[in-house]
Amino acid sequence: MFSFQANEDFLENDIRVKPDLDALGALGDVGWYCIRAILWAVDYELPKIVIALRDPVKNRAGVLLACGATLHWADGKTATFSCSFLTNVTMDITLVGTNGTIHVTDFVIPHQEKSAEFHVASKSSFAELDIGWDLPSKHVVATDLPQEALMVQEFARLVQGIRDAGSKPERKWPAITRKTQLVLDAVKASIDKGSEPVEVAS
Amino acid sequence: MFSFQANEDFLENDIRVKPDLDALGALGDVGWYCIRAILWAVDYELPKIVIALRDPVKNRAGVLLACGATLHWADGKTATFSCSFLTNVTMDITLVGTNGTIHVTDFVIPHQEKSAEFHVASKSSFAELDIGWDLPSKHVVATDLPQEALMVQEFARLVQGIRDAGSKPERKWPAITRKTQLVLDAVKASIDKGSEPVEVAS
Repeated sequence: MFSFQANEDFLENDIRVKPDLDALGALGDVGWYCIRAILWAVDYELPKIVIALRDPVKNRAGVLLACGATLHWADGKTATFSCSFLTNVTMDITLVGTNGTIHVTDFVIPHQEKSAEFHVASKSSFAELDIGWDLPSKHVVATDLPQEALMVQEFARLVQGIRDAGSKPERKWPAITRKTQLVLDAVKASIDKGSEPVEVAS
Repeated sequence: MFSFQANEDFLENDIRVKPDLDALGALGDVGWYCIRAILWAVDYELPKIVIALRDPVKNRAGVLLACGATLHWADGKTATFSCSFLTNVTMDITLVGTNGTIHVTDFVIPHQEKSAEFHVASKSSFAELDIGWDLPSKHVVATDLPQEALMVQEFARLVQGIRDAGSKPERKWPAITRKTQLVLDAVKASIDKGSEPVEVAS
């Protein structure tokens, strides 16, 4: 889930709500991060089909202000995301597997620049008589540089590798960017078809 | 979301996986709590329609082991739940409104008997340059008696009121129980119809 409550000026004038500018609206802006986070969680394996949640919110020009979808993988994994310009700032990953659960509540912009935290529960079990269960453990990742600086550093490193050391362009970033776009396009197609299931192209 | 990883004995022998006993399986057991929590969050207003998530997991006898659904209200509110006997213990409410967000991660059985906590963010805003945002505030609810004892206490209080003080039966509990069942039945009907939308009876 990624949402923030856009103010009136944003909802009237921002490029993200204009059909001739960022026509994908909330899906293209905040939804992008949700889809990327989901793909990260499944080692970037593409889902087989996506189904948009019904009744997305659009502005008068038809641009999405809030929407969501459920993604389905061939092996039975599922993921649901919700993205919105209309609700309080929320940036949650809740990742539940057979043997563990991970919670992150600030996956796009960390609350604080110097560190970010997440909670992990692994093979959680109940206390005797089911009167309680394991507390998750908290993990804090400290960083000297914020993520924006790390991104520029990585970009500069890759460019320098090509210029000075004969490296080839790094394939990781365009590959996961394209996959994110493929899922996003499938979600948009499902929205346009009234929430029918849409296969993800590969 | 409410899930726990059932062991082999449970998955073979528990009444919750038997078609002639608790035939609603994970939906009737852990799904019940999800639906009740959602109804609690909307002051027990019934949704208009529900749509089950595709591809629920069933055992050989056809009893649900994992499923989910999205609930839609007439005013545009939506809620999604997921319930499972097949994944790590998880008991999450994530409630996002226009002006605030609430997180609870142990809404059915608290981690510890003496207290339970939740996090609230209200009108969250970004720091200058969007390099951070408000930390949610943590609230801890302490209790001398665990919820099971409080339930018996409430039940005894209501019975005593009828026996000794001429009270009528309390309508709150059967009313919200019936609403929970109505939503659950609609989800089951949607599952049985291959995830078609189903109107909630009233």
